[in-house]
Amino acid sequence: MPSTPNPSKPTTHTITFLPVGRRLELESGHSLLEAARLLAADGSDSVDAPCGGLGLCGRCRVRILEGPVEPPTAAEKRLLSAEDLADGLRLACQAVPRGSLRVEIPPEVLASQPFLQVDGQPLALEPDPPVRRLTVPVRPTGTDRPLSVWQQVERSLSEDHGLETVRIDPALVRSTDPLAAGTEVTLSLYEDEVIALHWTPPQPPLGLAVDLGTTKIAGYLVELETGRVRVAHGIMNPQIRYGEDVISRLSHALAGREQARTLARLARQAIGQLAAAMIRRLGCSPAAIEDTVIAANTAMTHLLLEWPVAQLAQAPYVAASTAALELKAYELELDFSPGSRVFLVPGMAGFVGGDHTAMILGSDIHTLDGHVLGVDIGTNTEIVLRTPAGMFCCSCASGPAFEGAHIQHGMRAVQGAICRVRTTPDNALQFSTIGGRAPLGLCGSAMLDVVRVLREQGILSPTGILDRSHPRVRLGMGDSTPEVLLVEAAATGIGRDIVITQRDLSSIQLAKAAIAAGIALLLDRCGLDPHALDQVIVAGAFGTHLDLESAVAIGLLPQLPPERFRQVGNAAGLGAQRLLISRQERRRAERLARSVRYLELAAQADFPSAFARALYLRPMGSEPDPD
Amino acid sequence: MPSTPNPSKPTTHTITFLPVGRRLELESGHSLLEAARLLAADGSDSVDAPCGGLGLCGRCRVRILEGPVEPPTAAEKRLLSAEDLADGLRLACQAVPRGSLRVEIPPEVLASQPFLQVDGQPLALEPDPPVRRLTVPVRPTGTDRPLSVWQQVERSLSEDHGLETVRIDPALVRSTDPLAAGTEVTLSLYEDEVIALHWTPPQPPLGLAVDLGTTKIAGYLVELETGRVRVAHGIMNPQIRYGEDVISRLSHALAGREQARTLARLARQAIGQLAAAMIRRLGCSPAAIEDTVIAANTAMTHLLLEWPVAQLAQAPYVAASTAALELKAYELELDFSPGSRVFLVPGMAGFVGGDHTAMILGSDIHTLDGHVLGVDIGTNTEIVLRTPAGMFCCSCASGPAFEGAHIQHGMRAVQGAICRVRTTPDNALQFSTIGGRAPLGLCGSAMLDVVRVLREQGILSPTGILDRSHPRVRLGMGDSTPEVLLVEAAATGIGRDIVITQRDLSSIQLAKAAIAAGIALLLDRCGLDPHALDQVIVAGAFGTHLDLESAVAIGLLPQLPPERFRQVGNAAGLGAQRLLISRQERRRAERLARSVRYLELAAQADFPSAFARALYLRPMGSEPDPD
Repeated sequence: MPSTPNPSKPTTHTITFLPVGRRLELESGHSLLEAARLLAADGSDSVDAPCGGLGLCGRCRVRILEGPVEPPTAAEKRLLSAEDLADGLRLACQAVPRGSLRVEIPPEVLASQPFLQVDGQPLALEPDPPVRRLTVPVRPTGTDRPLSVWQQVERSLSEDHGLETVRIDPALVRSTDPLAAGTEVTLSLYEDEVIALHWTPPQPPLGLAVDLGTTKIAGYLVELETGRVRVAHGIMNPQIRYGEDVISRLSHALAGREQARTLARLARQAIGQLAAAMIRRLGCSPAAIEDTVIAANTAMTHLLLEWPVAQLAQAPYVAASTAALELKAYELELDFSPGSRVFLVPGMAGFVGGDHTAMILGSDIHTLDGHVLGVDIGTNTEIVLRTPAGMFCCSCASGPAFEGAHIQHGMRAVQGAICRVRTTPDNALQFSTIGGRAPLGLCGSAMLDVVRVLREQGILSPTGILDRSHPRVRLGMGDSTPEVLLVEAAATGIGRDIVITQRDLSSIQLAKAAIAAGIALLLDRCGLDPHALDQVIVAGAFGTHLDLESAVAIGLLPQLPPERFRQVGNAAGLGAQRLLISRQERRRAERLARSVRYLELAAQADFPSAFARALYLRPMGSEPDPD
Repeated sequence: MPSTPNPSKPTTHTITFLPVGRRLELESGHSLLEAARLLAADGSDSVDAPCGGLGLCGRCRVRILEGPVEPPTAAEKRLLSAEDLADGLRLACQAVPRGSLRVEIPPEVLASQPFLQVDGQPLALEPDPPVRRLTVPVRPTGTDRPLSVWQQVERSLSEDHGLETVRIDPALVRSTDPLAAGTEVTLSLYEDEVIALHWTPPQPPLGLAVDLGTTKIAGYLVELETGRVRVAHGIMNPQIRYGEDVISRLSHALAGREQARTLARLARQAIGQLAAAMIRRLGCSPAAIEDTVIAANTAMTHLLLEWPVAQLAQAPYVAASTAALELKAYELELDFSPGSRVFLVPGMAGFVGGDHTAMILGSDIHTLDGHVLGVDIGTNTEIVLRTPAGMFCCSCASGPAFEGAHIQHGMRAVQGAICRVRTTPDNALQFSTIGGRAPLGLCGSAMLDVVRVLREQGILSPTGILDRSHPRVRLGMGDSTPEVLLVEAAATGIGRDIVITQRDLSSIQLAKAAIAAGIALLLDRCGLDPHALDQVIVAGAFGTHLDLESAVAIGLLPQLPPERFRQVGNAAGLGAQRLLISRQERRRAERLARSVRYLELAAQADFPSAFARALYLRPMGSEPDPD
């Protein structure tokens, strides 16, 4: 059993699990699977071990990145290849640490992954996908009729379907028996090129929409002809092992060609694995995916394509290119339908990428009248302002605090996570958890609530400092950082106090300030007062679940009547889905990406003062001037 | 010095040089370079040895395919890598045979290669190439203007040039400095995709047209904007080491994936080497090639693309696909401009490929009125018949006899080759040679003449048999094959009698019969008499130089007045050039390839009897019925 963290006790080892970076102290002699299960108790990623940890199934593979482990057991030698072992792979149920370790849980081994938010609005869009199906007759090839399947297809497409030019993907011809027999064949065409051939009546054509984020990758399998989402799923971006923020990853890519190659491969493989995991649920192989749209921020796009990044890693953060791209899937090492394409959503600027274009499309901002603010909160937060004079955007480095990272009791939005915090009439705290279970930690949507109630109760100053003289404030164990006890150990599901620390609060405050300063400058440049906004659209998983009253109270969002806000879920993912099924939307995305004007915050002389003002935890517009 | 062939003399070795298959007896102790030079005396391929054979320059590399050689000398160990030696490479000036050898001269080592026929008509065509140039302004990237070169390009293409969708080849973005400085940049676009970027005012855009033949590969560097041919050049198809005819090569490809891969790589490398050799003459690198068109027969196309060939290697000879293809050049391992395309000309049937479509376009047959016959003579001969009711085509396995292969004194059309033979008033033979030099051998255009004069003089029967009782007929040295002395040793440039053998004559007769039978059946199926033909177009290097009177006299071509014939040179190459500079021609090629109807000769019940009739060396229509 694990000890509580105590560096003086020599019989424990610190085990850090990636990709999320959770760590615990593990008593020596215990396996990594036990460590993973202990961590899983508070909602973190767990390791899948169908055989129950008996060393039989070989599924609980983890990779030792750093630190000493006992030699492989007989079970490991049986279930892992010499290459696997050389690559640092071990079975979590067998591997026993000899010291402190850094361990990676591969995406495919992560058990019970929470599905990402897929609660965007349904696709209210007439499908007009670039991929379509046609069925054409074929007859056996004979001496009197020496025509291959493809030659018959060519003729039929030209004569019966009026195609002026007929193209067939050369790789598809390579992999198809030219004399295969049947009476008819169903083709998938991308525009006028045949990209797949089916002998048996196939499933309706499927496409993959991807929101490739810095932290998370969300995928959606969509029926191209109907726009119906069949499966949605999310995984962590495995590049995270090279840094949580984009600048760390760009720096890693700058270290050399091999490093850049590794980052590209990690993202490509993750998309491939995500697709494979989803399509397995439909009983199909990845070859059934006949079109793909990827919406990503500019850095993720550059890393995916191995583009030059030196100029993107420093001010003024210049993108090599932000144009729309059409690649063949195999160019991204994706084993989808041969000949199938990948559309990369066009972006606008160095830190306003295709994900933001997709977010605008997904939330319909471009179709609205009046003054509309769109905020897509993530590790990087993009803000767009729609005015009758045009659209303007900017990007803020808000960091991952709202996603629970670097918050002592931060966790994902799964069962047992505190999602709401309120002050009771008797000035106590009241918590709501997902699923009503005993609380395990705080998910993103509770962060703003905590700040708000601590402000309401006078525990936290407007400048973000905990009042050490307040009876609810104590010093954290083992250090001198003030913290507030939220839930006593006995009432939790983890057997430890759940607290929020001064450090946690500072992280949240910085994230809030980055976003609020961006909103303020964007409004200022358009000569607008926050009250002139007709609508505020809040996108992203965090944005969808945040409490608007709290967000307004601490100055994250403008002080406006509740009916002017709309929380739209993963609008970027929704936009990617729309682009998957509509050629018209693709053209619109290109026009949009070119027409939105970009404001580089770092280049604004008044950004530092705007940021300083936004640090105040007060409603927007009521902050004192910091000068 | 070489001995004359004499198997009883043990001090000589038989050296066979590929790709052309010339052989000689070499006295032991002499080097391969000496052997090559001896062969070169009669116009065959020679080996380039700039240092004069002193083992200094390392250029005269040849590959030993079979047979024993003395161990490598110090010079070879210095100038060749261990990999080279393991690969069978040796320096011809150093390598001394220990026994009979088969030796390949790599294409790049072949000296004084004759330029192929490039005497087609000039391109009478308004250029409308898919590749075009645009120059757009760029300004330095700064904090106030954080726009990369590409982002500025995107904006200009959209705003100044009205492109609705802007695409930039991702590999081009990868290889370009996003902050490179200048005041304007010239772009090459393929349709609406940017495929090249030039900082200094570039040469006019160049394209490559390729006629990829079974025996020869002809290339043309063409200015895309004017249609002007800048360089034309030809090399042997290096696949020839796996067989001279297409069936041998298809069989080799069928032996396994690796074999198929090798054949594909040989063709791709040869095209790359041909392009590099040509573009060097203009002081450019292959990256300056911005578009490519390849016209090839169906087998060459399949081998180039590693497509399935089992069904193509046997009756009814089914092509996997004959549709037009657009690939990126890098997909064929060609290091042309990043993003540049390759257009493969669409074909019609198993043995009527894109080269025939290109030939039709190049000779304008499709635009003519009345009844027009087009014959493109090569290792495989394609025949097209244009009638008011439509176009029909067929393909004949005519073999390489007309290209000089398997003819004892056959040679290429270079200086010293006999190109015309006539009967003098006193019944003697009169020869014309290229350049008026002492004769070295017979090139293709003399073959038909020889048959004709031997027929005229009663030496050769209508069934192709030499009259052994005729005083001009003798038995060849060392065997009992009858032969006719054409030029006595003293009058030649090779110091040996130039003869034509019964075996040579049979090869020519078979080739003639294959073509004539094809013409006869095609006319028959359209209910046409040969005299109904308004025009006969004869294409190909051989077809251009043959003597029409001879061809008519022995029944290769229909008996028509001379003014109805037109000899058009390498019409396939000309067609490829037209396709390179005209989008309209590409659309026309696709319509044409689909509309021409194919007659599979092997499937015609009366083909054997038509062939038997065509064996007669008499004017077409005057043959007796063989039954």
